[in-house]
Amino acid sequence: MSARPLDVAQLAEEVRAGDRRALARAITLVESRREGDSAATDDLLARLLPCTGKAVRVGISGSPGAGKSTLIDALGMFLVKSGKRVAVLAVDPSSTVSGGSILGDKARMGELASRDEAFIRPSPSASTLGGVTRRTRESLLLCEAAGFDVVLVETVGVGQSETAVADMVDFFLLLVIPGGGDELQGIKKGIVEAADLIAVNKADGDLLPAARIALAEYSAALRYLRPRTPSWKPVAQLLSARTGDGIDALWDAVGRHREALEASGELLALRRDQRVRWMWSLVHERLLREFRSLTVVREAIAASEQAVREGRRMPSQAADDLLRAWLEGSGGAA
Amino acid sequence: MSARPLDVAQLAEEVRAGDRRALARAITLVESRREGDSAATDDLLARLLPCTGKAVRVGISGSPGAGKSTLIDALGMFLVKSGKRVAVLAVDPSSTVSGGSILGDKARMGELASRDEAFIRPSPSASTLGGVTRRTRESLLLCEAAGFDVVLVETVGVGQSETAVADMVDFFLLLVIPGGGDELQGIKKGIVEAADLIAVNKADGDLLPAARIALAEYSAALRYLRPRTPSWKPVAQLLSARTGDGIDALWDAVGRHREALEASGELLALRRDQRVRWMWSLVHERLLREFRSLTVVREAIAASEQAVREGRRMPSQAADDLLRAWLEGSGGAA
Repeated sequence: MSARPLDVAQLAEEVRAGDRRALARAITLVESRREGDSAATDDLLARLLPCTGKAVRVGISGSPGAGKSTLIDALGMFLVKSGKRVAVLAVDPSSTVSGGSILGDKARMGELASRDEAFIRPSPSASTLGGVTRRTRESLLLCEAAGFDVVLVETVGVGQSETAVADMVDFFLLLVIPGGGDELQGIKKGIVEAADLIAVNKADGDLLPAARIALAEYSAALRYLRPRTPSWKPVAQLLSARTGDGIDALWDAVGRHREALEASGELLALRRDQRVRWMWSLVHERLLREFRSLTVVREAIAASEQAVREGRRMPSQAADDLLRAWLEGSGGAA
Repeated sequence: MSARPLDVAQLAEEVRAGDRRALARAITLVESRREGDSAATDDLLARLLPCTGKAVRVGISGSPGAGKSTLIDALGMFLVKSGKRVAVLAVDPSSTVSGGSILGDKARMGELASRDEAFIRPSPSASTLGGVTRRTRESLLLCEAAGFDVVLVETVGVGQSETAVADMVDFFLLLVIPGGGDELQGIKKGIVEAADLIAVNKADGDLLPAARIALAEYSAALRYLRPRTPSWKPVAQLLSARTGDGIDALWDAVGRHREALEASGELLALRRDQRVRWMWSLVHERLLREFRSLTVVREAIAASEQAVREGRRMPSQAADDLLRAWLEGSGGAA
């Protein structure tokens, strides 16, 4: 347990009451890497778990420049105006490069950020992907416990983060822009396969004809892909996040998707499977951490890496050396 | 040690002498999942390790239909005719779907398969990706020990296998074909980034104009990407595996790449880093295997998955339950 005077029960109560500052504090706790905070995190999440599961969880991915922030601002305002509370979580590993900051993220979604019905949590400034996604899953649950009706999880197409995000949401939206080269530059097949909806953004003004062509291409591509779930056929549509055209159609699709998956029981099954995969990803992470934290292993790692580097030991022999050191060390420690 | 009457010392000697049947037996040993064969594998590899490292290791990736087999047949014959011995390893996870077989792979590379200077190892019929790549690294070393001058590792763009293959070769070749939609259908940004050379195949007859356009596009894309190594700038070129046009230019690029990386010392550094990453991937794999093999863990897994599925336990609590079961169990066993 943490040595800090943190009252987890009270924090849980405040989160449950929808207090946005308490929610921000709770997410900070979840994001903490301090050893003592880990038990407090588990305690907090266990208290709030019964209040989770009611939000619509939407992942939004797209290359830098596709217009994700503009879309989230427009979609968020559309939802707020129809009486919904909206939380936005950003998973943007590129922000460490581009210098993304709290002000940066909030400024990007200017109108939404000013509303009481909205909560925007900016990208962590630096962390491993595994860390980001672990925190993002837990942050998502905290937002649900705080009574948000919709949680939008934003990610950028630079690595495995989309797959990780697709694995924690109900509906995965891929935002693309018209024009050649985009396919090559940013969008991986796996992301197209994970999409429940592909929105061709910037379908206004001069770009409209190019957007129509892109729409035809993505529609064709979707026809070749096997749908992720029997009860929903992924669709492509035009969108202008700037003018708002297509936002209502987009949300309509999210609603139809949810109805279909609820009716078939697949939403429940999807979320159950996601939780089990989450458990396994934590097991992997913690197992490796246990392994690396053992003194005898830590001492052996440098020597093993050096021997492998110089070709004196086969990688498989060195791997066994490390495992043996660990088995002996942990046997002694237990 | 295996209970079978396998003379590892003799097998190593036969492999070293370049005996292709011994090489095939050695790879079968390496691919074996039998518990006892694992020690024999390590013994064999340790004996042969000093004879490895001299081949040119080339990875060849591309979507199904890009013409990989035709290219390997043509490139392999080009090399054989210039006095080189060529080994081909296929890493094709899709072969489990398409029903790839030994005859299938050898038939695909008809001319090369008939030559004494060539050795073609077909795709394993069924295995996990991790298994395939572990075996492929070791098979590659066996081919080197058997004196092959060039090892071609073929992979298909359906998953993480290209990244794994790019991580075990010196030179990574991406084979593409002209025509829209290809970018979207099969090629991920990560693979383009990993490529040392992009060859636009089928640049003959009616497809030549389209191939020239694709070449311009890929050349442009390569300019945007950061090169993997300071001393080599990835290039794109036209190729016709059918007519053989461009094969010599391709091999010339492989040679220039090698000269540049040898001169800068990067080839040595690359291979050293690859070996260390290989060690770590084995540590992960074996650590998880140890974990799952413990009886108390095996018994706890079903209950933990069920509790997580039903929402009774948080994934992080369940992960800790499993880790605790394992720490206690392994402490008792050690």
